[in-house]
Amino acid sequence: MRLLSSLLLAGGLLALGPASAQMAQSAAATNTADSLAIRKIYDEALLRGQSYENLRYLCEQIGPRLAGSAGAAKAVEWGKLTMEKAGCYDRVYLQECQVPHWVRGAKEKALVFGNKGKGLPLAVCALGGSVATPGSKPLRAGVIEVKSLAELKALPDAAVRGKFVFFNRPFNDAYIEQGRAYGEAGDQRRAGPAEAGRRGAVGALVRSLTSARDNYPHTGTTQYGDTPTQVPGAALSTLGADQLSQLLQADPKLEVELTMSCQTLPDVTSYNVVGEIKGATHPEQIVTVGGHLDSWDLAQGAHDDGTGVVQSMEALRLLKAAGLRPERTVRTVLFMNEENGTRGGEKYAQLAQQNHETHLAAIESDGGGFTPRGFTAETAPANLRKVAAWQPLLAPYLAGQLTPGHAGTDVEPLVAAVHPTALFGYKCDSQRYFDIHHTAADTFDKVNRRELELGGAAMASLIYLLGKYGL
Amino acid sequence: MRLLSSLLLAGGLLALGPASAQMAQSAAATNTADSLAIRKIYDEALLRGQSYENLRYLCEQIGPRLAGSAGAAKAVEWGKLTMEKAGCYDRVYLQECQVPHWVRGAKEKALVFGNKGKGLPLAVCALGGSVATPGSKPLRAGVIEVKSLAELKALPDAAVRGKFVFFNRPFNDAYIEQGRAYGEAGDQRRAGPAEAGRRGAVGALVRSLTSARDNYPHTGTTQYGDTPTQVPGAALSTLGADQLSQLLQADPKLEVELTMSCQTLPDVTSYNVVGEIKGATHPEQIVTVGGHLDSWDLAQGAHDDGTGVVQSMEALRLLKAAGLRPERTVRTVLFMNEENGTRGGEKYAQLAQQNHETHLAAIESDGGGFTPRGFTAETAPANLRKVAAWQPLLAPYLAGQLTPGHAGTDVEPLVAAVHPTALFGYKCDSQRYFDIHHTAADTFDKVNRRELELGGAAMASLIYLLGKYGL
Repeated sequence: MRLLSSLLLAGGLLALGPASAQMAQSAAATNTADSLAIRKIYDEALLRGQSYENLRYLCEQIGPRLAGSAGAAKAVEWGKLTMEKAGCYDRVYLQECQVPHWVRGAKEKALVFGNKGKGLPLAVCALGGSVATPGSKPLRAGVIEVKSLAELKALPDAAVRGKFVFFNRPFNDAYIEQGRAYGEAGDQRRAGPAEAGRRGAVGALVRSLTSARDNYPHTGTTQYGDTPTQVPGAALSTLGADQLSQLLQADPKLEVELTMSCQTLPDVTSYNVVGEIKGATHPEQIVTVGGHLDSWDLAQGAHDDGTGVVQSMEALRLLKAAGLRPERTVRTVLFMNEENGTRGGEKYAQLAQQNHETHLAAIESDGGGFTPRGFTAETAPANLRKVAAWQPLLAPYLAGQLTPGHAGTDVEPLVAAVHPTALFGYKCDSQRYFDIHHTAADTFDKVNRRELELGGAAMASLIYLLGKYGL
Repeated sequence: MRLLSSLLLAGGLLALGPASAQMAQSAAATNTADSLAIRKIYDEALLRGQSYENLRYLCEQIGPRLAGSAGAAKAVEWGKLTMEKAGCYDRVYLQECQVPHWVRGAKEKALVFGNKGKGLPLAVCALGGSVATPGSKPLRAGVIEVKSLAELKALPDAAVRGKFVFFNRPFNDAYIEQGRAYGEAGDQRRAGPAEAGRRGAVGALVRSLTSARDNYPHTGTTQYGDTPTQVPGAALSTLGADQLSQLLQADPKLEVELTMSCQTLPDVTSYNVVGEIKGATHPEQIVTVGGHLDSWDLAQGAHDDGTGVVQSMEALRLLKAAGLRPERTVRTVLFMNEENGTRGGEKYAQLAQQNHETHLAAIESDGGGFTPRGFTAETAPANLRKVAAWQPLLAPYLAGQLTPGHAGTDVEPLVAAVHPTALFGYKCDSQRYFDIHHTAADTFDKVNRRELELGGAAMASLIYLLGKYGL
């Protein structure tokens, strides 16, 4: 491209007009002062944003930080210090919680033995929470491939017993939003090993949850629940899964030899990190914004969820720097242990209940730091209409979408505990997220500075509007 | 993130409701059959798309293809063959045109001599169309830094004569759309060397047109117009420009030594590649879709404009594969020489005029292959309203934006030649485009398969609607 005209934006966005006269009226009423305030927020983010350099430190100096690890402890220290240095909070404090402590052990191995070769390697990693292979020794068995938990259920015991169940359900690429494909295919990872164990299998091999075709295995939690027999569960890269499936077609009697030495150690004390600014006129009403500080152990946790962490800190800094003192109390919360326990989210909710807190809203950013689309919301229809009236203010910043839907795992426990008026999820573009999600490729270089900063500014803008108008 | 709910999309997009009752009515009328047709287009793109593998070949097997080069000739052959193989066109043909033939020569050098060191290297490349340094030998001179053409104009001759003019205007990061920053800062690249020469400078050093802070110099066309004295123009990387600016503050008398051996050779015969499907009911009305086949010489031209090329081919294949025979004639046009001459775009328009063709619409994709936003449009207000009524059909596919604005350089000559009813530009997200634009980093690995495919499907959907309903 040689030249894009500066007219591109000048014409405004026809697509994002208000959907009703009532909304148009509300939008007009809030328009002038609020649009100036929001412009200030974006100027600060785009011209003097700090989230990108904060993320660089978190990713490159601290790196992997699974709950219970030394990395997680360092991340807590860093989070507290970074918030204290930001100078925008009235107070910064920790919330103690007990977290699970799972360790991966030695690098996992999976080898195929069959007609086509003896010891062909597959790219593999243990699923989070999995047990080791017995004695952490090589475990060799035949393989039965299924595309779903239902397909496993329909198989006779004899077909499953003593084998690896190979769950090979791909992402449904026809879905426009990748989160939907993840939600659907995800059951094989979450429950596959438990179901395999229940049916007498020796282990489970699970296709990685991604549309990407490469050799990264994607980890993520698997849960045994009350399964009497816990068998090891491992993720195969998508290329590895395709290869195994082809080999099986040619040679149904092939065997896989899996070696994993992961284990669950005793719980460890860890913390949420909280920074708070007291509201000027309604200090008793709280708006929180958060991401999760822990990450999987394989990578830097850049998009999952380093971006949510630095955006949640940046959002409040932006308000302060733009001279917008919140009318209601606002909090940044860096949740611990989202990936394999949600203990931080539960602790935050429990303390909110104990302290009889009123949560107007909780916003979570845990879908990556990609280019903005808008927000998801869980709230009553009347509130949704109120928030929809603010959309014309956010649309020029590419964040005008408002979609009823899941807000986030860490804020979810608040619902039962303190009945917040609304939960919001920051919604950025989903196309690239699952390419790197829970893999060694989730690194700082995958984050674009402007995309990251636009997200923090969108969150700050929503907080500003919630703080000013309530719900 | 552990789990995104499948509710994310189920609720629909509140943001994208129709802006008026009239639009709502039109949308409802077209909704059922058209939404099914568009769903078919997307299924084909996302499940069986061919554009990503086509792009891989163009980038990795052909690579750089500046007009007049051997790469461009190969790209023409490939384009014709690929369209013939696609099996969706009634005919595929070439349109001959004469194109400029500029060659970069040996790798450029820029060294700083001053208080801080003798021979500090700066990352540099010649601007496209630039002359060499005299005799292709090192050219050494002092440096005067300005932030704009206006600032140069205000300087006395004595401050400029015999020096390099260093145009160091950065992108305005406050703009949400990067194209706007490019449009504004771009004058220093396009006209900087000409203006410097007019004022008696020996050359021009131009800050790269990007928000990224790295060491890639960004090439791009510079034009001398009727300047009597043509002096060499080079782009500095943004880090190089920052470094030079700092060095100049400490040592205003420093000198830069620039060496470039680029030259303009005689024009070469080249071609647009055109594929056409005759319309079933209105064959005399034409809808074209295109990108440009040439690229800068430094890179693979993945996003600029390999993505536009493969999307423009894919769009018509998708229609055929989805069983949607166009009512109007549709054409894929791969334009030659967009980057440094627009001779292909001019030739296409000239032939359209000679043949008394009626162009209902021309769509161009030349802003990269990033995640979709929608379309820009140049057309009468009544047509814009008609297209706006289709937005509810495209919004679920993230392509619901419609913005009045520049459509594309290659389709622009059609306006004077045949007065098309409308021009459209495919508008994808702009945040990452200028990080790599016109640099060695514009490579295949920067393209996400799904983002690319969503774009081709959006273009196919617009063509389907234009072909069915006209304007």
